[in-house]
Amino acid sequence: MLTPLRVDTNSLTITDRLNSVGFEVRFKAVVGDSVDELATVLATALGLSDLVVCTGGLGPTEDDVTREAVARALQVPLEPDQAVLDRIRARFERRGRAMPEINRRQALVPRGAVVLDNEQGTAPGLWIARDRVGLLVLPGPPREMTPMLERAIDDRLVPHGAGTALYRRVVKITGLMDSEVDMRTHPVYSQWRDRPIPIATTILMAPGGIELHLTASAASRQEADRALGTAARELQETLGDAAYSADGRTLEAIVGDLLRAGSLTVATAESCTGGLLMSRLTDVPGSSAYVDRGFVCYSNRAKVEWLGVPEALIDEHGAVSEAVARAMAEGVRARAGTDIGIGVTGIAGPGGGTPAKPVGTVAICVATRDRVPVRTFRLHGDREMVKYQATQAALDMTRRLLMNLGT
Amino acid sequence: MLTPLRVDTNSLTITDRLNSVGFEVRFKAVVGDSVDELATVLATALGLSDLVVCTGGLGPTEDDVTREAVARALQVPLEPDQAVLDRIRARFERRGRAMPEINRRQALVPRGAVVLDNEQGTAPGLWIARDRVGLLVLPGPPREMTPMLERAIDDRLVPHGAGTALYRRVVKITGLMDSEVDMRTHPVYSQWRDRPIPIATTILMAPGGIELHLTASAASRQEADRALGTAARELQETLGDAAYSADGRTLEAIVGDLLRAGSLTVATAESCTGGLLMSRLTDVPGSSAYVDRGFVCYSNRAKVEWLGVPEALIDEHGAVSEAVARAMAEGVRARAGTDIGIGVTGIAGPGGGTPAKPVGTVAICVATRDRVPVRTFRLHGDREMVKYQATQAALDMTRRLLMNLGT
Repeated sequence: MLTPLRVDTNSLTITDRLNSVGFEVRFKAVVGDSVDELATVLATALGLSDLVVCTGGLGPTEDDVTREAVARALQVPLEPDQAVLDRIRARFERRGRAMPEINRRQALVPRGAVVLDNEQGTAPGLWIARDRVGLLVLPGPPREMTPMLERAIDDRLVPHGAGTALYRRVVKITGLMDSEVDMRTHPVYSQWRDRPIPIATTILMAPGGIELHLTASAASRQEADRALGTAARELQETLGDAAYSADGRTLEAIVGDLLRAGSLTVATAESCTGGLLMSRLTDVPGSSAYVDRGFVCYSNRAKVEWLGVPEALIDEHGAVSEAVARAMAEGVRARAGTDIGIGVTGIAGPGGGTPAKPVGTVAICVATRDRVPVRTFRLHGDREMVKYQATQAALDMTRRLLMNLGT
Repeated sequence: MLTPLRVDTNSLTITDRLNSVGFEVRFKAVVGDSVDELATVLATALGLSDLVVCTGGLGPTEDDVTREAVARALQVPLEPDQAVLDRIRARFERRGRAMPEINRRQALVPRGAVVLDNEQGTAPGLWIARDRVGLLVLPGPPREMTPMLERAIDDRLVPHGAGTALYRRVVKITGLMDSEVDMRTHPVYSQWRDRPIPIATTILMAPGGIELHLTASAASRQEADRALGTAARELQETLGDAAYSADGRTLEAIVGDLLRAGSLTVATAESCTGGLLMSRLTDVPGSSAYVDRGFVCYSNRAKVEWLGVPEALIDEHGAVSEAVARAMAEGVRARAGTDIGIGVTGIAGPGGGTPAKPVGTVAICVATRDRVPVRTFRLHGDREMVKYQATQAALDMTRRLLMNLGT
């Protein structure tokens, strides 16, 4: 967790679960395997909060220093616990193995701590209440940590909770710049802090769009839903149809719901996105109801042979052109016999760009029986970013067409 | 950063850059917009380390409390800096706007701090040296933060660095359980701590496999490369061909390099993976040299019409079967005229499972002129996990076939 290669996910799970019972997270820290440092940081955290949750470092090896650090931070001795030792030994015996001596370390418990059972592993958890501050110590592997966290919340935290919880809603926007989103929405969300149920707002850049995260502190989900629903509607009125989702649904799920509602089917013909558009469409459970087939035609030969794109069209306009995108969309629609065909052709980079058609140039067409919108985009970023944004643009064109919004 | 929805990326960038000049990161923290709390955490961090890097909270609004917290942690006054104020005002004037009064806050500087120019925004950075400890304060947006970090490293940290730097290598493994990887590799990597150039090892679960991250502290890249290369080879000898990458390359890049080396072309026929296999193959820059086309046949009709899979075969064995996977692989290979055809059919879930073929059942075939390996996998996890692991299995079967390893 202290390398440049890894992000932690435990803290996200813990924050989510704690928020749901009314705890706000004020401080997160990642510390190395040093008793001194961990004890210092634990002491700091205990001074800042009503509850400290600490994960990891409960294994049997010398690197596992959490038990020692907790004892030091609380200034209590670490003592062997026979019941814990018996349980660890029994766990090994059930698997037909003798307990290695090294695992004795896992039976050391800071004086005054309650031991929490771990059904998925050998490392028990700890719960220590001291001067109105709770310290919950859990093992690191998410498979062990999560069920123990949930049990501790039910048994120990909910009874003492504030009676309110934090509820969230995410409004997703595509096709607008962040500065424009902020300019339009600031007068709206800045009013929300003074409402009976205050709502905090954060603007975040997401791949292929912008997200507004709304957080309400309320006594019940119903109350929160009402307040967040009103707030989300105000944003949608301000942002118009650029705000495609007000309930956290992904763009592919929104398009899927529109297709399903209209009993429509879809097929895709992709070049630069290489199958990512189809993969996103089929990420939605139940998408087999409306997704028929997709074709990735990386070579020009494939475009000609399988989609019937005229070679002359490619020669005249180039493979990356609105004419070819349209021929791909109409070709795949006709061959698959679906209601909608989507064609995407572009230059994902890093090579292949020209002055007239630089890297990031993508032509997209959505073909139906009577309407065939086609657009050219200039997208920025590396190969994977261009691919993702191109699928976002294609899905948004499809959404707009299905909602009769104009593209 | 204190919500369950967001992971920080600045700390990864900072860790990477600091490692490269020999600093090891011992402590990371995320703190909310409270002067008291931030000052407390900064004081803790200053007590633990030789260098503290702090990002964000330098904007003009009341939420931006980093300047105050730094002054409080260092117990120095905060003073207006006329030169900074002039620069901020000039920045606004260049854009034809008057500086809003609120931006005056950005010209407050803790006494004794060196102001660092920000060419991308209004918030200047700060550098404060005190009792051999350095405190570097940078704005939060990565576009502003990263160049300022790099300049500070060059100007202020490298001259005082330890003369060594941390170098990393990642060995990637697929097809083995984590316990088996640990059992086989522990006797190997546990020796490395005592070498002239010590190597630290971390085992991490990654989607579709396991990664061993090796870190060496050395005076030069050449020295580190030699030590890490030896270590990686020892791991590969222990793990055999399950260790597919010893230089960080992705599995799709490895397969791509093998295809390119053999001047071979590939086409895919996907059902449950929905285009993700093709998308991964085409994530590799230059993949158009060996990727011809791919077909996503979500409906049975598509499998019959476009790939020539006999309807009787689907009726007899079911769409998710080795027979159909083979017909898909051979069908797409014949129709595309490529050297290799890959067929994937399975049940990604959450629906569609049966007792005989539960969710996660995936049949994969890799067809060449003379060899046609086919296998059935039982994969675990949610829809997206099953999709990803299925593409991993398909790429690994292709790699093994291309390396003549047997599947």
